[in-house]
Amino acid sequence: MIKVIALYKHPENKEKFDEHYFNIHAPLTAKIPGLKEMNVTRITGTPFGESEYYMMCEMIYEDKETFKKAMKSEEAKASGKDAQAFAGSIVTLLFGESEDA
Amino acid sequence: MIKVIALYKHPENKEKFDEHYFNIHAPLTAKIPGLKEMNVTRITGTPFGESEYYMMCEMIYEDKETFKKAMKSEEAKASGKDAQAFAGSIVTLLFGESEDA
Repeated sequence: MIKVIALYKHPENKEKFDEHYFNIHAPLTAKIPGLKEMNVTRITGTPFGESEYYMMCEMIYEDKETFKKAMKSEEAKASGKDAQAFAGSIVTLLFGESEDA
Repeated sequence: MIKVIALYKHPENKEKFDEHYFNIHAPLTAKIPGLKEMNVTRITGTPFGESEYYMMCEMIYEDKETFKKAMKSEEAKASGKDAQAFAGSIVTLLFGESEDA
Protein backbone atom coordinates (compact mmCIF):
# COMPACT_ATOMS: atom_id res chain seq x y z
CA MET A 1 0.00 0.00 0.00
CA ILE A 2 1.00 3.59 -0.55
CA LYS A 3 1.12 6.00 2.36
CA VAL A 4 1.28 9.74 2.60
CA ILE A 5 2.53 10.71 6.06
CA ALA A 6 2.03 14.24 7.34
CA LEU A 7 4.14 15.12 10.38
CA TYR A 8 3.07 18.34 12.07
CA LYS A 9 5.38 20.18 14.45
CA HIS A 10 3.85 21.93 17.46
CA PRO A 11 1.55 24.74 16.33
CA GLU A 12 1.65 28.10 18.09
CA ASN A 13 -2.03 27.84 18.98
CA LYS A 14 -2.93 24.20 19.57
CA GLU A 15 -6.63 24.85 20.13
CA LYS A 16 -6.94 26.76 16.86
CA PHE A 17 -4.93 24.08 15.05
CA ASP A 18 -7.09 21.24 16.37
CA GLU A 19 -10.27 23.09 15.51
CA HIS A 20 -9.15 23.67 11.93
CA TYR A 21 -7.63 20.23 11.60
CA PHE A 22 -10.63 18.21 12.72
CA ASN A 23 -13.43 20.45 11.43
CA ILE A 24 -11.98 21.63 8.12
CA HIS A 25 -8.83 19.81 7.05
CA ALA A 26 -9.63 16.18 7.90
CA PRO A 27 -13.09 16.30 6.24
CA LEU A 28 -11.56 17.90 3.12
CA THR A 29 -8.88 15.19 2.99
CA ALA A 30 -11.41 12.41 3.58
CA LYS A 31 -13.07 13.40 0.30
CA ILE A 32 -10.00 12.52 -1.83
CA PRO A 33 -11.14 9.78 -4.23
CA GLY A 34 -9.39 6.45 -3.64
CA LEU A 35 -8.34 7.25 -0.07
CA LYS A 36 -8.65 3.91 1.73
CA GLU A 37 -7.86 4.91 5.29
CA MET A 38 -6.81 7.97 7.28
CA ASN A 39 -5.17 7.53 10.68
CA VAL A 40 -4.48 10.45 12.96
CA THR A 41 -2.04 10.05 15.85
CA ARG A 42 -1.50 12.63 18.54
CA ILE A 43 2.17 12.56 19.51
CA THR A 44 2.50 12.47 23.29
CA GLY A 45 6.27 12.49 23.69
CA THR A 46 9.48 10.54 23.31
CA PRO A 47 11.44 8.33 25.72
CA PHE A 48 13.43 11.48 26.59
CA GLY A 49 10.68 14.09 26.96
CA GLU A 50 8.75 16.28 24.55
CA SER A 51 8.75 15.54 20.83
CA GLU A 52 9.32 18.12 18.13
CA TYR A 53 6.19 16.65 16.52
CA TYR A 54 2.61 17.34 17.60
CA MET A 55 0.56 15.18 15.29
CA MET A 56 0.92 12.60 12.55
CA CYS A 57 -1.62 11.77 9.87
CA GLU A 58 -1.32 8.77 7.58
CA MET A 59 -3.33 8.60 4.39
CA ILE A 60 -3.39 5.17 2.83
CA TYR A 61 -4.03 4.20 -0.79
CA GLU A 62 -4.35 0.67 -2.14
CA ASP A 63 -1.69 0.99 -4.85
CA LYS A 64 0.42 3.41 -6.90
CA GLU A 65 -2.16 3.83 -9.63
CA THR A 66 -4.92 4.79 -7.20
CA PHE A 67 -2.52 7.14 -5.44
CA LYS A 68 -1.41 8.88 -8.64
CA LYS A 69 -5.01 9.31 -9.76
CA ALA A 70 -5.95 10.65 -6.32
CA MET A 71 -3.14 13.21 -6.36
CA LYS A 72 -4.51 14.70 -9.59
CA SER A 73 -8.01 15.15 -8.18
CA GLU A 74 -9.58 18.48 -7.29
CA GLU A 75 -10.14 17.16 -3.77
CA ALA A 76 -6.40 16.48 -3.27
CA LYS A 77 -5.60 19.96 -4.54
CA ALA A 78 -8.12 21.47 -2.11
CA SER A 79 -6.68 19.48 0.80
CA GLY A 80 -3.11 20.45 -0.13
CA LYS A 81 -4.04 24.11 -0.49
CA ASP A 82 -5.73 24.08 2.90
CA ALA A 83 -2.73 22.35 4.55
CA GLN A 84 -0.41 24.94 3.06
CA ALA A 85 -2.61 27.76 4.36
CA PHE A 86 -3.11 26.60 7.96
CA ALA A 87 0.08 24.59 8.57
CA GLY A 88 2.51 25.27 5.71
CA SER A 89 5.37 26.17 8.04
CA ILE A 90 5.01 23.20 10.40
CA VAL A 91 4.10 20.26 8.18
CA THR A 92 6.47 17.71 6.62
CA LEU A 93 5.10 15.32 4.01
CA LEU A 94 6.58 11.89 3.43
CA PHE A 95 5.65 9.29 0.84
CA GLY A 96 6.03 5.62 1.71
CA GLU A 97 5.25 2.03 0.84
CA SER A 98 4.16 -0.66 3.28
CA GLU A 99 6.53 -3.54 3.88
CA ASP A 100 5.81 -6.93 5.31
CA ALA A 101 8.01 -7.33 8.37
CA MET B 1 -4.75 2.87 20.81
CA ILE B 2 -1.17 3.55 21.82
CA LYS B 3 1.54 3.78 19.18
CA VAL B 4 5.29 3.69 19.33
CA ILE B 5 6.69 5.20 16.14
CA ALA B 6 10.30 4.58 15.16
CA LEU B 7 11.62 6.90 12.45
CA TYR B 8 14.93 5.78 10.98
CA LYS B 9 17.14 8.18 9.04
CA HIS B 10 19.10 6.82 6.07
CA PRO B 11 21.63 4.23 7.24
CA GLU B 12 25.18 4.28 5.85
CA ASN B 13 24.78 0.74 4.56
CA LYS B 14 21.17 0.14 3.51
CA GLU B 15 21.67 -3.51 2.63
CA LYS B 16 23.18 -4.29 6.03
CA PHE B 17 20.46 -2.26 7.75
CA ASP B 18 17.65 -4.08 5.94
CA GLU B 19 19.19 -7.45 6.64
CA HIS B 20 19.47 -6.73 10.37
CA TYR B 21 16.10 -5.00 10.51
CA PHE B 22 14.03 -7.74 8.88
CA ASN B 23 15.96 -10.79 10.10
CA ILE B 24 16.87 -9.77 13.63
CA HIS B 25 15.14 -6.61 14.83
CA ALA B 26 11.58 -7.08 13.56
CA PRO B 27 11.31 -10.68 14.85
CA LEU B 28 12.68 -9.57 18.26
CA THR B 29 10.14 -6.74 18.40
CA ALA B 30 7.28 -9.00 17.29
CA LYS B 31 7.83 -11.03 20.48
CA ILE B 32 6.92 -8.13 22.80
CA PRO B 33 3.88 -9.30 24.77
CA GLY B 34 0.74 -7.26 24.08
CA LEU B 35 1.95 -5.95 20.72
CA LYS B 36 -1.18 -5.85 18.57
CA GLU B 37 0.23 -4.77 15.24
CA MET B 38 3.53 -3.76 13.66
CA ASN B 39 3.55 -1.75 10.43
CA VAL B 40 6.73 -1.06 8.53
CA THR B 41 6.79 1.69 5.90
CA ARG B 42 9.67 2.30 3.54
CA ILE B 43 9.92 6.04 2.95
CA THR B 44 10.24 6.74 -0.75
CA GLY B 45 10.50 10.52 -0.77
CA THR B 46 8.74 13.81 -0.21
CA PRO B 47 6.93 16.14 -2.62
CA PHE B 48 10.26 17.98 -2.95
CA GLY B 49 12.71 15.10 -3.34
CA GLU B 50 14.53 12.80 -0.96
CA SER B 51 13.40 12.49 2.64
CA GLU B 52 15.72 12.59 5.63
CA TYR B 53 13.90 9.42 6.73
CA TYR B 54 14.48 5.94 5.36
CA MET B 55 11.97 3.84 7.23
CA MET B 56 9.14 4.10 9.73
CA CYS B 57 7.89 1.39 12.02
CA GLU B 58 4.69 1.68 14.04
CA MET B 59 4.07 -0.61 16.97
CA ILE B 60 0.50 -0.60 18.17
CA TYR B 61 -0.89 -1.51 21.60
CA GLU B 62 -4.55 -1.73 22.54
CA ASP B 63 -4.36 0.62 25.55
CA LYS B 64 -2.05 2.35 28.03
CA GLU B 65 -2.06 -0.50 30.51
CA THR B 66 -1.02 -3.08 27.89
CA PHE B 67 1.64 -0.68 26.62
CA LYS B 68 3.09 -0.03 30.10
CA LYS B 69 3.22 -3.73 30.86
CA ALA B 70 4.83 -4.42 27.49
CA MET B 71 7.54 -1.82 28.08
CA LYS B 72 8.58 -3.60 31.27
CA SER B 73 8.99 -6.98 29.55
CA GLU B 74 12.30 -8.68 28.84
CA GLU B 75 11.31 -8.80 25.17
CA ALA B 76 10.92 -4.99 25.00
CA LYS B 77 14.30 -4.57 26.67
CA ALA B 78 15.89 -6.95 24.16
CA SER B 79 14.30 -5.07 21.23
CA GLY B 80 15.39 -1.69 22.64
CA LYS B 81 18.94 -2.91 23.24
CA ASP B 82 19.12 -4.25 19.70
CA ALA B 83 17.78 -0.99 18.21
CA GLN B 84 20.33 0.98 20.18
CA ALA B 85 23.13 -1.28 18.93
CA PHE B 86 22.31 -1.33 15.21
CA ALA B 87 20.59 2.02 14.74
CA GLY B 88 21.14 4.11 17.88
CA SER B 89 22.44 7.11 15.98
CA ILE B 90 19.71 7.21 13.31
CA VAL B 91 16.49 6.28 15.13
CA THR B 92 13.94 8.68 16.66
CA LEU B 93 11.21 7.22 18.87
CA LEU B 94 7.82 8.88 19.27
CA PHE B 95 4.92 7.90 21.48
CA GLY B 96 1.39 8.60 20.32
CA GLU B 97 -2.31 8.02 20.74
CA SER B 98 -4.80 7.34 17.95
CA GLU B 99 -7.45 9.98 17.31
CA ASP B 100 -10.72 9.64 15.48
CA ALA B 101 -10.65 12.12 12.61
